[in-house]
Amino acid sequence: MPSPIPVAVLGATGSVGQRFISLLDNHPWFKVVALAASDRSVGQKYSQAARWILDVPMPDYAKDMVIVPASTDSVQAKIVFSALHNEIAKDLEPQFARAGMAVCSNASSFRRDDDVPLLLPEINADHVHLVTQQRKNKNWSGCILTNPNCTSTGLTIALKALDDAFGVKKVFAVSLQALSGAGYPGVASLDIMDNVIPNIKGEEEKVEWEPRKMLGKYNNGKIDLADIQFSAHTNRVAVTDGHLVCASVELTSQADPQTAEAILRDFSAASSARELPSSPRPVIQVREEADRPQPRLDRLTGNGMTTVVGRIRRDPILDLKFVVLSHNTIRGAAGGSIYNAELLVSEDLL
Amino acid sequence: MPSPIPVAVLGATGSVGQRFISLLDNHPWFKVVALAASDRSVGQKYSQAARWILDVPMPDYAKDMVIVPASTDSVQAKIVFSALHNEIAKDLEPQFARAGMAVCSNASSFRRDDDVPLLLPEINADHVHLVTQQRKNKNWSGCILTNPNCTSTGLTIALKALDDAFGVKKVFAVSLQALSGAGYPGVASLDIMDNVIPNIKGEEEKVEWEPRKMLGKYNNGKIDLADIQFSAHTNRVAVTDGHLVCASVELTSQADPQTAEAILRDFSAASSARELPSSPRPVIQVREEADRPQPRLDRLTGNGMTTVVGRIRRDPILDLKFVVLSHNTIRGAAGGSIYNAELLVSEDLL
Amino acid sequence: MPSPIPVAVLGATGSVGQRFISLLDNHPWFKVVALAASDRSVGQKYSQAARWILDVPMPDYAKDMVIVPASTDSVQAKIVFSALHNEIAKDLEPQFARAGMAVCSNASSFRRDDDVPLLLPEINADHVHLVTQQRKNKNWSGCILTNPNCTSTGLTIALKALDDAFGVKKVFAVSLQALSGAGYPGVASLDIMDNVIPNIKGEEEKVEWEPRKMLGKYNNGKIDLADIQFSAHTNRVAVTDGHLVCASVELTSQADPQTAEAILRDFSAASSARELPSSPRPVIQVREEADRPQPRLDRLTGNGMTTVVGRIRRDPILDLKFVVLSHNTIRGAAGGSIYNAELLVSEDLL
Amino acid sequence: MPSPIPVAVLGATGSVGQRFISLLDNHPWFKVVALAASDRSVGQKYSQAARWILDVPMPDYAKDMVIVPASTDSVQAKIVFSALHNEIAKDLEPQFARAGMAVCSNASSFRRDDDVPLLLPEINADHVHLVTQQRKNKNWSGCILTNPNCTSTGLTIALKALDDAFGVKKVFAVSLQALSGAGYPGVASLDIMDNVIPNIKGEEEKVEWEPRKMLGKYNNGKIDLADIQFSAHTNRVAVTDGHLVCASVELTSQADPQTAEAILRDFSAASSARELPSSPRPVIQVREEADRPQPRLDRLTGNGMTTVVGRIRRDPILDLKFVVLSHNTIRGAAGGSIYNAELLVSEDLL
Repeated sequence: MPSPIPVAVLGATGSVGQRFISLLDNHPWFKVVALAASDRSVGQKYSQAARWILDVPMPDYAKDMVIVPASTDSVQAKIVFSALHNEIAKDLEPQFARAGMAVCSNASSFRRDDDVPLLLPEINADHVHLVTQQRKNKNWSGCILTNPNCTSTGLTIALKALDDAFGVKKVFAVSLQALSGAGYPGVASLDIMDNVIPNIKGEEEKVEWEPRKMLGKYNNGKIDLADIQFSAHTNRVAVTDGHLVCASVELTSQADPQTAEAILRDFSAASSARELPSSPRPVIQVREEADRPQPRLDRLTGNGMTTVVGRIRRDPILDLKFVVLSHNTIRGAAGGSIYNAELLVSEDLL
Repeated sequence: MPSPIPVAVLGATGSVGQRFISLLDNHPWFKVVALAASDRSVGQKYSQAARWILDVPMPDYAKDMVIVPASTDSVQAKIVFSALHNEIAKDLEPQFARAGMAVCSNASSFRRDDDVPLLLPEINADHVHLVTQQRKNKNWSGCILTNPNCTSTGLTIALKALDDAFGVKKVFAVSLQALSGAGYPGVASLDIMDNVIPNIKGEEEKVEWEPRKMLGKYNNGKIDLADIQFSAHTNRVAVTDGHLVCASVELTSQADPQTAEAILRDFSAASSARELPSSPRPVIQVREEADRPQPRLDRLTGNGMTTVVGRIRRDPILDLKFVVLSHNTIRGAAGGSIYNAELLVSEDLL
Repeated sequence: MPSPIPVAVLGATGSVGQRFISLLDNHPWFKVVALAASDRSVGQKYSQAARWILDVPMPDYAKDMVIVPASTDSVQAKIVFSALHNEIAKDLEPQFARAGMAVCSNASSFRRDDDVPLLLPEINADHVHLVTQQRKNKNWSGCILTNPNCTSTGLTIALKALDDAFGVKKVFAVSLQALSGAGYPGVASLDIMDNVIPNIKGEEEKVEWEPRKMLGKYNNGKIDLADIQFSAHTNRVAVTDGHLVCASVELTSQADPQTAEAILRDFSAASSARELPSSPRPVIQVREEADRPQPRLDRLTGNGMTTVVGRIRRDPILDLKFVVLSHNTIRGAAGGSIYNAELLVSEDLL
Repeated sequence: MPSPIPVAVLGATGSVGQRFISLLDNHPWFKVVALAASDRSVGQKYSQAARWILDVPMPDYAKDMVIVPASTDSVQAKIVFSALHNEIAKDLEPQFARAGMAVCSNASSFRRDDDVPLLLPEINADHVHLVTQQRKNKNWSGCILTNPNCTSTGLTIALKALDDAFGVKKVFAVSLQALSGAGYPGVASLDIMDNVIPNIKGEEEKVEWEPRKMLGKYNNGKIDLADIQFSAHTNRVAVTDGHLVCASVELTSQADPQTAEAILRDFSAASSARELPSSPRPVIQVREEADRPQPRLDRLTGNGMTTVVGRIRRDPILDLKFVVLSHNTIRGAAGGSIYNAELLVSEDLL
């Protein structure tokens, strides 16, 4: 890479925004040139505006940057990473695309649009080419790329490996999700201390639909949704980072746990997504202990980009049961968006 | 009741033992005459021997009782409540039955025996009559009664209501279980802080089998196992008390969520189990909020004896999804055993 | 008591408001006739307006009460319990006093006023007579009574016993405070999970001043502040209820730990405050274990009204060290206000 | 450094042992040649014997090492890092010193011995020369070096800066200590969930004595204890790593908070301890926010070797109050021992 690509973070003070700023520190291709946030913060130095909540320190580069408004006038970049709330993203992200910028978004606003890639590069890198169709349809030179909700992320990566090998027909998924998934301030401490909250608004619908798009076939400028049935229960538990999913799956062809384990362990990304700066190494780590993966012990596997799977065993009703863990603000949010941006660059689609 | 029935607690110092002692305080029928524990504690006053961990104070009656050995020589009672570990229970409980005492046990050692009732009086009170067969088979005048593991408890009660109304064919169950279920000291704090443990040794097998016995038909001195398939994932979470289960079920006849909700709400115990001192009032409470039941807020419903159900909704693969909560050391352990004993007494089987 | 005294709760939906509603259920003297809250809630049934966060269920009497505005037009009561925020309390509470009602307040707005009692009936019941002076000064027929901040509460009760016996000169106090002290939603879960927050805004100033008023002498219509020096550090920890304080004290006359322990254990309230419905029984409980009091195990001692003290030992610099626990939303907030109201009634000052 | 120095870890499977193994990964001077543990583990591969509890992965070098007995026959190294329990350390550590090895110990067994350095290189590097006296006294060629208990560590470092500048006379210290300080399994989850344990056995005595030795003057082969009075309360809180101490101090000469803050910020180690591989950079970080340091956010400052101080303000009784945070298993245990070993090497005392 000759000179670094200028990038910006929208919604820079929130919890996902902070993770973007942390992960972009010393990025080999990207240089952060603008941090945008709401009016309340505009004009302040980042170190004053942000209530930093990560357990890794705020990078030096960000401390003295002055927050700008989240508008195309104030932000001059090639790529913008969006940690905006959905309602705001709906209005703002198209403006940035129209202004010629590539928007890599965490918001759910455009995930279901036919010409917007919903991307996990290790499993559906070819979907990135939807942006060509998108540019034609929308008549803009930028683009919008999305990553899925943080609970679908790890689950879908594991399912892809199994689907390629055996065909997946039905999936029961019950999540135990971390607090950082709700942003900051997010969940009140009195709601979660010594407690579980057995619902996360809107999440079950996402987990029951988004994997079908990601596991779908890219076909002539559009995606054919995968023909897989999903049933999801979503729960909030007292964990800071790391979403765990208990899954039971029905397969098209028989698979014993040992074979499935080998398939998961050996899964690799398409070559286009394999050697990018944020590529997970490995894509999937299989744990053999009887009680892993666990959020606190395993969430930072592969710098938080690896999907960790364990307890692969027969299901008495369907075929297989297993447990999946994924770091929700790294692989499932900011790290995923950065990985998407890297794919866009390496595919010459910027 | 003319004069109180003398009862004893075996394994009195542990976490379930403490719950027995707490729940038996001022019991209208029973009077605690002996507390038995391991050799290490024998001869000490209970208040010295027990490291009390409940958030309700130790009852006065227990403080000065002197711990005796868990042997039929040392314990003179009509009913013994057993909070013994399985390996010990296997040896000791038959000795007490042989000595003419009714053993109401939390241990899993005899749950699968054909002539041992596995009892939740609000749903299978008639199974108590297995003890007549048991006495014949074993040639003893006492008996052994068991209650199921704490995760099966609430789930099976909810399933019974649905099974009576619609027929249950398949059940997916994922548990989020409390720390007190592992006893004391049980789970190390470093293992559960900011974490989930996605396995509880031996628990999934129990959840996949025990409900089938409890939902089975009592028939001429034996139980025909219910023809229902179960698939279970069990998890430990950072909650002190209260096991939550996410369940998806397939039914024989169609049921919409509203009808199922009414069926659950209106479920009542057989008349023999309805008006006992520990009878749950109501048997099932249905919560209508989008995010209930929750362990901290709902576990003490009906003094911890009520099963709380919420989020009854359609399942995209099977028929219905819902969430069940049950207090694991009250309804799911000590309170359940006491309820069993009350049924035995009121049925004149003591 | 012939007929119940009509009372109201201001700020009824918040965490302290909920505790008022819970503690006033079946109160022998008081009957709740109005629940007032902010405009957002007015007109709704209480069960709809309040997000109930206590682990005891919402009392039936409250469920269908319709929320009214917190104004003297809407509230017809003899006593109003105020769980209002300080800024609002500053304006509203005098209006209620002027309208002839006795305001028993948790807010800090008037605690420092010369003619407003800052009351812990078990230690300074005579201070209640300040209301006579207050009525004269303010020319109103109602009155304002306050209870101290929840951290000062237990500490000051323990200090009173020691001060009466030995004289207290200096006090170091370091608190470990519960989450419910910050209200709801209060502390964000991401701020307290696996963490301590070593500051609570404004709290140290209160702990360094309020005990001096409560330990002061009532003298001819005013209080002479006690001549005691305080130094406080305040911390928030991951506990739902129960404030713990580590204290080191310098005394005027020598006291060995055993004597101090006896003095604390035997402390009793003035006769006027000893037999009220909410009187703590005992006022102080001394725990002898090496590691008590503990919030989870001891906060409900005496229904949450008792102050629990432990680890009384020599201090290498001053005279004595000890640990104090008090339930912050019962004795330290709603329960304290109710106790204050009971004293006002029994002293014929209503 | 020409060739790496062979080192061993005693007590390698425990929580401090794990931290040693993690911190010694890629150490520029040291190479781990032996891992020793109790008989139960001997002969197993480390990856099988250890239940790894750190949230950073087990280093590859350790996985296949076979556990050896903790005896001088089995361990051939120049330096042994001891994470042994005190009773075992008392017997074993002298054997290793006698066999010519330098024992860098976390145990408390020899901390009070006149000729054993109690070392925090950033504040008392010269104390390392006690080993010359020790070798003479004990007639052995190895040596024993100790680091203080984890609560004294950060406190003493902050006190040293203040003592050099203003003289310290009295110290009140109240700790809020992390769970990892108790080892594994250590504190039971039911003991700390929603709770605080207001005592840590033996800890207050250590905090009241150890700083006096470390702040003492090295004088002709012995240490004159510093003439400072300490009073300590120690508490266990629900935090995984990071001990927080609230301190109030009396000084010999007046100091305003701003000056003290500058003194703390500018404190640097003696030149002999300043540029070692594990030297904290900076020694002390001062946080200016009103609510820092916090364990989760600040414990990894300077890779866990930096002492973090905040809230420096006037004390109403003594002179200054402040809060200190130190990572208890890095700076306060394994990292501290490694730093000690580096000093020993660089001072040519190995």
